Amino acid sequence: MTRPELNKSTRLCISLAARPSNHGTRFHNWLYEQLGLDFVYKAMTTTDIDAAIGGVRALGIRGCSVSMPWKEAVIPLVDELTPSAAAIQSVNTIVNTDGRLTAYNTDYLAIEQLIASHGLSRDEKVLLRGSGGMGRAVAAAFRDAGFAGTIAARNPVAGQGLAAELGWDWAEAPDGITAPIIVNVTPIGMAGGADAEAQAFSDEQVAQASVVFDVVAMPVETPLIRAGRAAGKHVVTGSEVIALQAAAQFELYTGVAVTPEQVAAAEEYASRD
Amino acid sequence: MTRPELNKSTRLCISLAARPSNHGTRFHNWLYEQLGLDFVYKAMTTTDIDAAIGGVRALGIRGCSVSMPWKEAVIPLVDELTPSAAAIQSVNTIVNTDGRLTAYNTDYLAIEQLIASHGLSRDEKVLLRGSGGMGRAVAAAFRDAGFAGTIAARNPVAGQGLAAELGWDWAEAPDGITAPIIVNVTPIGMAGGADAEAQAFSDEQVAQASVVFDVVAMPVETPLIRAGRAAGKHVVTGSEVIALQAAAQFELYTGVAVTPEQVAAAEEYASRD
Repeated sequence: MTRPELNKSTRLCISLAARPSNHGTRFHNWLYEQLGLDFVYKAMTTTDIDAAIGGVRALGIRGCSVSMPWKEAVIPLVDELTPSAAAIQSVNTIVNTDGRLTAYNTDYLAIEQLIASHGLSRDEKVLLRGSGGMGRAVAAAFRDAGFAGTIAARNPVAGQGLAAELGWDWAEAPDGITAPIIVNVTPIGMAGGADAEAQAFSDEQVAQASVVFDVVAMPVETPLIRAGRAAGKHVVTGSEVIALQAAAQFELYTGVAVTPEQVAAAEEYASRD
Repeated sequence: MTRPELNKSTRLCISLAARPSNHGTRFHNWLYEQLGLDFVYKAMTTTDIDAAIGGVRALGIRGCSVSMPWKEAVIPLVDELTPSAAAIQSVNTIVNTDGRLTAYNTDYLAIEQLIASHGLSRDEKVLLRGSGGMGRAVAAAFRDAGFAGTIAARNPVAGQGLAAELGWDWAEAPDGITAPIIVNVTPIGMAGGADAEAQAFSDEQVAQASVVFDVVAMPVETPLIRAGRAAGKHVVTGSEVIALQAAAQFELYTGVAVTPEQVAAAEEYASRD
């Protein structure tokens, strides 16, 4: 299939990021072409987020993905904050329907779906490492699904603050804490990072857990996921998060649901050199 | 040549019109593809011109074509009004260079070029029929090139006002007036219009003229152009205006000059069913 020629009715979706990458542009346009959808997607940046979101509305831009540092700044600029964005006061997806802007957080939505699809039980405690933006999304989705647990995060402001919001415990470090569900939401184990070879939870913590969840998506097999697999644990990977997040965003913009296979193929295409 | 795949660096140009057509979208995208330019063009509309132009600036949209009813409304929204737009206080082209918006009127620029390329002499008087937006652009370009003449327009406010601005004469109707250069800037002779079969100037006026200029571009051969050709006059057609206007806009957006042949081919493509 080839993409229909651009015309006056073609819907435009954009992303706003401080440093735009090609990933989203390639991901979405590839799926538009595969599915024969009359859409076009383009990564952008801005120095004026208020005017940019005003422009999204006024120009009839159908969808706008929002990255750091504007995930909170856009909240007063939209017309409706849906529960996924309200839960963590963080927006990564704006949908424009006839000039009305509705905001979502598809990271939260992806975690919500993964908890359900993997059949995770709220009777099991969560030990979550990290307290950044994604950490907040993951922790809130678990909490809202009825889970309790501990936030392990060095930063006392972010870490203790998040734990207090959730009604969870806080620990400065995860050392010595065990839980049935261990979740890494730090960059530990991320390819190219300072701790690329490090394992976010110890072998002992992995051994004590039943579910090992790493939000890091690059590489697909992080040291933690490798350890979890080796120990025969139920693993949930960062690439699942990315795929569901992207699928949720795609469906919000286009109204078209995509299969995990289609998302995987688009991810593979978008990640090619 | 095929258009490069969309990426984060692809430049976006748009048009804003109350009723967007496919013409500009097809015209520009076809030329981008032919020339291998990393641009994409999309027709849009808006209900909030201030926020739309703010969005053009904030989103780094490279170019914005402006149609009725916003050609004057955008003046306070841009950073610089170049002489072509200042001359008639009407903007049809905005170029965004790193957040700085510069406004042009490429209709005016096209007429300016046609006066030069056809070697029209300012010693010859102009009889111009019409006083709408395009009439103002054509009349101002002639006046600024040193021509004098008469505005024939029924509407005394627009017609007499324009004549006064230019320092030209005004007549309610062209009947009985002759001039070496006769220019139609009304819809008379336009395909599909109420006066599609009518001839904007009489056979007698054509006979007395040396130059017959019709801004109506559809059909290419209007009744006036046909009469001018039949009488052996020097004719200037609306399709020349459209082509030069579009070429000027294209070059302002992309920095790439196009040949008349390329513009003609793009026009032909854009006008296809």
